[in-house]
Amino acid sequence: MSVLIVGSVALDSVTTPFGEVKDILGGSATHASYSASFYSPINLVGIVGSDFPSEYVDLLKERQISLDGLQIVDGKTFRWSGYYEYDMNQAYSLSTELNVFSTFHPVIPEQYRSTEYVFLANIDPELQLDVLRQMDKPQFVALDTMNYWIQNKKDELLKVISKVDMVLLNDAESRQLCNTPNLIKAARQVLSMGPKIVIIKKGEHGALLITSDFIFSAPAFPMEMIHDPTGAGDTFAGGFIGYLASMKDINEVNLRRAMITGSCMASFNVEDFSLNRLRRLTQEDIHGRYREFQELSHFDPLEGMGE
Amino acid sequence: MSVLIVGSVALDSVTTPFGEVKDILGGSATHASYSASFYSPINLVGIVGSDFPSEYVDLLKERQISLDGLQIVDGKTFRWSGYYEYDMNQAYSLSTELNVFSTFHPVIPEQYRSTEYVFLANIDPELQLDVLRQMDKPQFVALDTMNYWIQNKKDELLKVISKVDMVLLNDAESRQLCNTPNLIKAARQVLSMGPKIVIIKKGEHGALLITSDFIFSAPAFPMEMIHDPTGAGDTFAGGFIGYLASMKDINEVNLRRAMITGSCMASFNVEDFSLNRLRRLTQEDIHGRYREFQELSHFDPLEGMGE
Repeated sequence: MSVLIVGSVALDSVTTPFGEVKDILGGSATHASYSASFYSPINLVGIVGSDFPSEYVDLLKERQISLDGLQIVDGKTFRWSGYYEYDMNQAYSLSTELNVFSTFHPVIPEQYRSTEYVFLANIDPELQLDVLRQMDKPQFVALDTMNYWIQNKKDELLKVISKVDMVLLNDAESRQLCNTPNLIKAARQVLSMGPKIVIIKKGEHGALLITSDFIFSAPAFPMEMIHDPTGAGDTFAGGFIGYLASMKDINEVNLRRAMITGSCMASFNVEDFSLNRLRRLTQEDIHGRYREFQELSHFDPLEGMGE
Repeated sequence: MSVLIVGSVALDSVTTPFGEVKDILGGSATHASYSASFYSPINLVGIVGSDFPSEYVDLLKERQISLDGLQIVDGKTFRWSGYYEYDMNQAYSLSTELNVFSTFHPVIPEQYRSTEYVFLANIDPELQLDVLRQMDKPQFVALDTMNYWIQNKKDELLKVISKVDMVLLNDAESRQLCNTPNLIKAARQVLSMGPKIVIIKKGEHGALLITSDFIFSAPAFPMEMIHDPTGAGDTFAGGFIGYLASMKDINEVNLRRAMITGSCMASFNVEDFSLNRLRRLTQEDIHGRYREFQELSHFDPLEGMGE
């Protein structure tokens, strides 16, 4: 099935201990779409300025990502610039120029409205609500957000959360939204708001998927070298929902596989700047890493415990 | 096989959001020994004062823990007092009265010297070295430490690390000892110092076991209620080494099982103050939780990936 992905398309300038890049392709919708495109057909909705390089359009098209929903308007593309120190868990923003993104009003093209899977990447929760109003009856809607919206538009955020099937938060956002240090308690609180599934992304500590029926803990891939963590969360989300949309059913087995698939994609993403590693990625690479995740977390029953 | 455990035996006064206890049985050797005693015969080496309650001696004896190495001397027992706030990851010390522990010189009774497994719980690295000098040729030695020794006795600590088979560190200690934020890099550095196995304890994020051959990531048990985290790390270490000593071989399968066994024991320990939960613990409880850990981390191969 297809996945509609709404979010930012940006030009990032990033400095890490491993190098420096300027105006490279970034943004939540970009990372999520590129990652998801390995599994399902993608419809991207976003906005860029007239300065957006045509090579980046080509790059997305190469992966059969539909860009009918990408508005190209007069003005400059959203730009983010930031840096990471040796502790790659923390991004330091130097500047955020919204540019044309500040006028973004997602318009869902007619032919996108029946898309079965939807990923509302991190944008203003009012816009996320607006996207849902334009859609027919999607089978599965996942939502991401950030600390800024939790602080400044909590009511609108809670409203859209009540309408989606799955929420993705990082650990800090979970604690902030639910006002508790305990991540499991926070997840249960989010479940009580409506969604059936909560994912808590913990960066170097992996990710948790929590439903009212089960909890799944996905390990993080052990990495000695993280070249650029930008977009890891969106790449995870894209891999997750792209994989899920490629399966017949949303069931426990596939949700667990989707968590590992998302983790695989994120682990590749951080090996290079922008989409550089994903551009070289093969199905063999993905399967190989999936097997490494199995090795990483497998253990046998105790002797004599039976099974 | 038997396990020799050397460390502190203490009287703890602890306040958490769930209650307050005074002068209850604590200490690294206590928690580790009690936990390990579920799997193997334990020889405890430590020191207490003449004020040490006889009921606590009985409590350890009930689990067949040999106390021939427990020195009972004139003076007061080591006391620690501290509290936890709602974020249970952080212990706040109110007072640390070393008392008779400040004069501790571990004397290994003749009949203990051939013990095959040794756990050097967190004490002065000079004393840890002294213990090793007194032992015949143990088959497996594990070592724990803390930030204080990394900062104040690094040379002695590195010396004893070079002589052991396994080192346990928490995430902060790993970063401090190896001067890198990357836990995998830190672990590789510790491996280069001599030990064959490094365990990094990450509290609510689980634990990693790293060797030159493989990495195993153990999830943390998802807990909504942590009543008292005191001793969780030592309970983990005790469960780990106690289980390992009960097996025929130290191999990858058993090391992975030992990680989960330690995690099970630690998850029980934090459900109540002191050893209260472990005192009520049955083999059925342990097996049940082990199965929950399997549920928590299991995922299937991708369809069509083969095996």
